[in-house]
Amino acid sequence: MEQRLSIITLGVSDLIKSTSFYEQQFGWIKSSFSNENITFFELQGMQLSLYERSALAKDATVSDQGTGFRGIPLAYNTRAEKEVDDLIARFEKKGVDIIKKPEKAAWGGYSSYISDPDGYLWEIAYNPFINLD
Amino acid sequence: MEQRLSIITLGVSDLIKSTSFYEQQFGWIKSSFSNENITFFELQGMQLSLYERSALAKDATVSDQGTGFRGIPLAYNTRAEKEVDDLIARFEKKGVDIIKKPEKAAWGGYSSYISDPDGYLWEIAYNPFINLD
Repeated sequence: MEQRLSIITLGVSDLIKSTSFYEQQFGWIKSSFSNENITFFELQGMQLSLYERSALAKDATVSDQGTGFRGIPLAYNTRAEKEVDDLIARFEKKGVDIIKKPEKAAWGGYSSYISDPDGYLWEIAYNPFINLD
Repeated sequence: MEQRLSIITLGVSDLIKSTSFYEQQFGWIKSSFSNENITFFELQGMQLSLYERSALAKDATVSDQGTGFRGIPLAYNTRAEKEVDDLIARFEKKGVDIIKKPEKAAWGGYSSYISDPDGYLWEIAYNPFINLD
């Protein structure tokens, strides 16, 4: 297998609400091949897709029952610590659920967590060890 | 926010076992900045990381309790239907847990699902609508 990932899908309870969250809170623009059943956001060569949760489970032939910690947070790394503060301040103002306020992390970075409408966790962090340029 | 994703982290119960799964079953090579606590695989500009599940929950300041469907499968798209069959045949031979055997999908592709050691789902699929080149 080539060392790559094509799509991450988030199983969501309300596609319109979740699409609007990523459009309005993240400021992202959906891909033109999105449709009424699925939303795609192109993220540098891969796609983040939003799809109805029970339909997603059915597609995978597994039960859609599940609760609690998913164990698979997504991370958005900023280019500076201040950018973490600024993003979290803006999220807070807009009513986004802040799970962890920005703080120095044991691994040497500066990290915070927010939740999307379905409880999917996003770490918003500055990592001085990963060069984004 | 720029339209990108930096890291997907999988909370795993056994870091050595999970690292070995992605190295041996997927044939991936870990990043040089991996260490005994965390494994990184670079996937075209983003990182897939493996980190101990309860430590991950602690970092996010949430409970590590959680069961069932996580709702967030990852997808690896191939360049042809036959590649899906070949990969699944190889996974089967190597004892990887096959969740769904390859079949024509309602959305027009050809799709299968496998599970990693912690139950994270990977869709292995051919999608004729997404050009990988």
